Amino acid sequence: MTAMNLRGVFAPIPTPFDRDERLDLDRLGAACERWAASPLSGLVVLGSTGEAVLLDELESERVLSLARERWPSGRTFIAGAGRESTAATIRAVGRAADLGADAVLVRTPGFYKSQMNNDAFVRHYRAVADASPVPVLLYNFTAVTGVNLPAAAVTTLAAHPNIIGIKESSGDIAQMTDLVAGTPEDFCVLAGSSTTFYSSLCMGAVGGVLALACVLPDACVRLFELTRDGRHAEAAALQHRLVPVAKLVGNMHGVPGLKAALQLAGCDAGVPRSPLAPVSAAAVAALREALMSFEEVARV
Amino acid sequence: MTAMNLRGVFAPIPTPFDRDERLDLDRLGAACERWAASPLSGLVVLGSTGEAVLLDELESERVLSLARERWPSGRTFIAGAGRESTAATIRAVGRAADLGADAVLVRTPGFYKSQMNNDAFVRHYRAVADASPVPVLLYNFTAVTGVNLPAAAVTTLAAHPNIIGIKESSGDIAQMTDLVAGTPEDFCVLAGSSTTFYSSLCMGAVGGVLALACVLPDACVRLFELTRDGRHAEAAALQHRLVPVAKLVGNMHGVPGLKAALQLAGCDAGVPRSPLAPVSAAAVAALREALMSFEEVARV
Amino acid sequence: MTAMNLRGVFAPIPTPFDRDERLDLDRLGAACERWAASPLSGLVVLGSTGEAVLLDELESERVLSLARERWPSGRTFIAGAGRESTAATIRAVGRAADLGADAVLVRTPGFYKSQMNNDAFVRHYRAVADASPVPVLLYNFTAVTGVNLPAAAVTTLAAHPNIIGIKESSGDIAQMTDLVAGTPEDFCVLAGSSTTFYSSLCMGAVGGVLALACVLPDACVRLFELTRDGRHAEAAALQHRLVPVAKLVGNMHGVPGLKAALQLAGCDAGVPRSPLAPVSAAAVAALREALMSFEEVARV
Amino acid sequence: MTAMNLRGVFAPIPTPFDRDERLDLDRLGAACERWAASPLSGLVVLGSTGEAVLLDELESERVLSLARERWPSGRTFIAGAGRESTAATIRAVGRAADLGADAVLVRTPGFYKSQMNNDAFVRHYRAVADASPVPVLLYNFTAVTGVNLPAAAVTTLAAHPNIIGIKESSGDIAQMTDLVAGTPEDFCVLAGSSTTFYSSLCMGAVGGVLALACVLPDACVRLFELTRDGRHAEAAALQHRLVPVAKLVGNMHGVPGLKAALQLAGCDAGVPRSPLAPVSAAAVAALREALMSFEEVARV
Repeated sequence: MTAMNLRGVFAPIPTPFDRDERLDLDRLGAACERWAASPLSGLVVLGSTGEAVLLDELESERVLSLARERWPSGRTFIAGAGRESTAATIRAVGRAADLGADAVLVRTPGFYKSQMNNDAFVRHYRAVADASPVPVLLYNFTAVTGVNLPAAAVTTLAAHPNIIGIKESSGDIAQMTDLVAGTPEDFCVLAGSSTTFYSSLCMGAVGGVLALACVLPDACVRLFELTRDGRHAEAAALQHRLVPVAKLVGNMHGVPGLKAALQLAGCDAGVPRSPLAPVSAAAVAALREALMSFEEVARV
Repeated sequence: MTAMNLRGVFAPIPTPFDRDERLDLDRLGAACERWAASPLSGLVVLGSTGEAVLLDELESERVLSLARERWPSGRTFIAGAGRESTAATIRAVGRAADLGADAVLVRTPGFYKSQMNNDAFVRHYRAVADASPVPVLLYNFTAVTGVNLPAAAVTTLAAHPNIIGIKESSGDIAQMTDLVAGTPEDFCVLAGSSTTFYSSLCMGAVGGVLALACVLPDACVRLFELTRDGRHAEAAALQHRLVPVAKLVGNMHGVPGLKAALQLAGCDAGVPRSPLAPVSAAAVAALREALMSFEEVARV
Repeated sequence: MTAMNLRGVFAPIPTPFDRDERLDLDRLGAACERWAASPLSGLVVLGSTGEAVLLDELESERVLSLARERWPSGRTFIAGAGRESTAATIRAVGRAADLGADAVLVRTPGFYKSQMNNDAFVRHYRAVADASPVPVLLYNFTAVTGVNLPAAAVTTLAAHPNIIGIKESSGDIAQMTDLVAGTPEDFCVLAGSSTTFYSSLCMGAVGGVLALACVLPDACVRLFELTRDGRHAEAAALQHRLVPVAKLVGNMHGVPGLKAALQLAGCDAGVPRSPLAPVSAAAVAALREALMSFEEVARV
Repeated sequence: MTAMNLRGVFAPIPTPFDRDERLDLDRLGAACERWAASPLSGLVVLGSTGEAVLLDELESERVLSLARERWPSGRTFIAGAGRESTAATIRAVGRAADLGADAVLVRTPGFYKSQMNNDAFVRHYRAVADASPVPVLLYNFTAVTGVNLPAAAVTTLAAHPNIIGIKESSGDIAQMTDLVAGTPEDFCVLAGSSTTFYSSLCMGAVGGVLALACVLPDACVRLFELTRDGRHAEAAALQHRLVPVAKLVGNMHGVPGLKAALQLAGCDAGVPRSPLAPVSAAAVAALREALMSFEEVARV
């Protein structure tokens, strides 16, 4: 159905803000060019890592436009477009398509948790997929949304011609295994957790959308390739070495940690927007040490 | 500081939609007049019960304008104004004040859960309270947001001259007790859970913002008055009788359950907006029976 | 059916150990006499607070014998007798009755959590109650067992002639309300959480089994009496003052905290048994301050 | 230090009871001979799967004696010996060694959850390992105990000469990765969850203690060997096929499900002991279908 590449490693890029917390498109453009020089399969713009929920609609459009412009046209470009209401999601999906997204990543609505059962998810995603001009990726991120998209709902939704895959961010390998087992071969399961990326690939994920890939794109792509090529001992060893950085950038310090790590890696993604705040000096020191340890071992 | 009444019972009113899920201001107006005829102390518009996260900014303003217009000017009128970013919250708070809100109810941001520590909450609320033209009520609803506003943060924030109280929706009486103990006498702690309203009042809450009060305003106000007047045996008995209805309208069926219960009580609040869906026929039957049981006992 | 008093305040007493962690019956006897001089309605021996799971069967019998001997025969004496298997529970219940227990308190089995559904609980408690020579109290302590005894199971079990009540330790007032509403008038619901004791009494609990009552028996009994006599404002004020001590003795420092608090109050209950360990000096200081604050306010 | 083999697949065997729920050593002996004919690396007797918490001490000794006698002396024989108190654990460990156990598996104490911090675990396991005549395996099974043994505590304890490994039953691959990374090469990390066994091996586990291996020992051993031999595609495919059976035998139906599955596989392990109960006819049918599906695919 689509020629778009969903294999490999995707970077869910952060949205730069300046010191006054205003959108900083210059920094965004420079960062996009940096990522374009890496072997990443594609970008995800306006995901959770992109502080999408802290942007208004106009800002969202400016981010999408600029990133699309700076990202090579032949490489996959995915836009986050989840909203709480079905109607707002459909509008966001349409705008993303207009602005050149190859596909949209649609987070589960999660505000009314007790009402979000199997049926509600199926209705929501069907309506969105019916209306979307571009293919839809489901997005399950329980730690953030507080709801879990059941494997049974994914199996049902995988039959929709405009739903092409899912990003599963739990890092729960049993759930990943269920998703792969319950969907057709051409349905793309993408891992969202860097600490279990290798295990996810082993169980049938075709790639990953990894915050860590913003900072260490080459290493993440190498982990993908080693696994694809059956070089499992090397892959496992690389996964082990990536874990300490992955933890700091992920759960522990979140988006502020990612922005600090990018700064240390020579890429200026600005500061986070309130209520998020820059990480402490101690966290920066821990990130610096983890990055240096990783590079040193890599050099040997 | 303010002459506004925060004692007693407040109804967090739902937002009516028509069959096409469009905002239905006629139904809203009619419902407001109905509530105005009851002994409620005030309304909360655009709270969680108001499906605020399913509305766009323009719709939010239309709801506020209309409700403000139909609600007696002498009675307290509170607007929900929580957003994920601090800046967007400040804008929402300003608009609510412009449209006549006496106070604003500001839900904790909760998307980036791992980053929402004591400091982040204090910074967020201070910035909002500094900027708000009207008094601010904190709002802790862990079951929905997935984060808990620590009692220590509330103690700190209670010292801000423009923060006048908190709505605590957990129904956790130990937490309610901590909030009352940790804040000055004139800081208003409001209960958000109908099943433990009487206990909350016993421990020092000055009132409640209760979804149940949309359906049974007189009974909820009577429960408040019995407790205030020291008629504890009657209050406890009334609380016991309200529990079955409160459960169905609350956790079990959420906003769709509330809209169904209102319909049964003769108040047409329309349908919920997707991804929410109307409750099943079985749920309507359970609601009808619970309401009838309540009325029968009440009549005796 | 029984003349035993289940109203009022019961102390779930700790089991003293000496420095070598051996059972210390001398300290136990002295402590029992101290509690006998207080207005407590009764004792619970070998409950969670009694480190029962750290004792072998022979030690359990020695504790029961000694405590029974030192406790006035006219006052209620309850023995904890929960075990993981139904058969072992029946044996423990029989031994407790032989040693003079007026009733037994039987904790829900909880090791095989996924199998402990409504049916399993009903079967277990029916078998135990059928076999027990003395009346049975159910015991729900989810924070420790990891399972919740559903209110529906309690309603079913309350019909058994040898099941006379329940100790509910969650401190969840909504659940307490459900238990009172779902059981006959003469079924005794006892609160297990000191921080919400007053609220539990307001909602129909007939008394409490409170670790705090080991340390402050007079104050706990006074809280019971004030509520019983309709002096609600005084009761709420006393509850507020008890919370800081209750927290330290309860969740925060557990049995080691209770033993430290007893020491400070002039009652030597020895040390806890490994893997439990005495609390830190900082915890002792916090307990001392909380106890002194309480006494000071009480004196005024 | 030890010549004992801890690589490969271990079966945590169930304890058979007859219709009157009495220990059934004949069935146990017959089952042991069956397992001895399989390529399992060893047995774990009196683990969670062995209903150890439902046995008294005398029964425990009879089970250990009989199983030890029927299990080939050259193959690894591990005894579960966890208790709540440190002293009782030391006694159980001593008895197990006397009865011929090559090593002991010691579950974390978990009753006093709020007190079980890093220090408490380290103290407990050091005391047990100091006293144990045979090597000690740590055992972390959070779903049952409600406590988590922190990776930091495992790193500390791995330095003890008599602590040789850990069974980690969470199925959390990130935690498994941390355990492998935080311990020396010769410290044995064993997986306890069948649904993620392959992923655990990929990340450095040296084997597994799998309830599923009681029912399908050959398939589990084959999964181990395929992974060891670098035949990853076949291993992943076999893991996928094992998941449906693993789920039914594991979380969903627990020990009763395992006993029913064994019966279907031609091995009579009797009934579970109360409060556990045999599974429903519907569960038996689901197990039969899952086992038949597995065998059919295996045959092709």
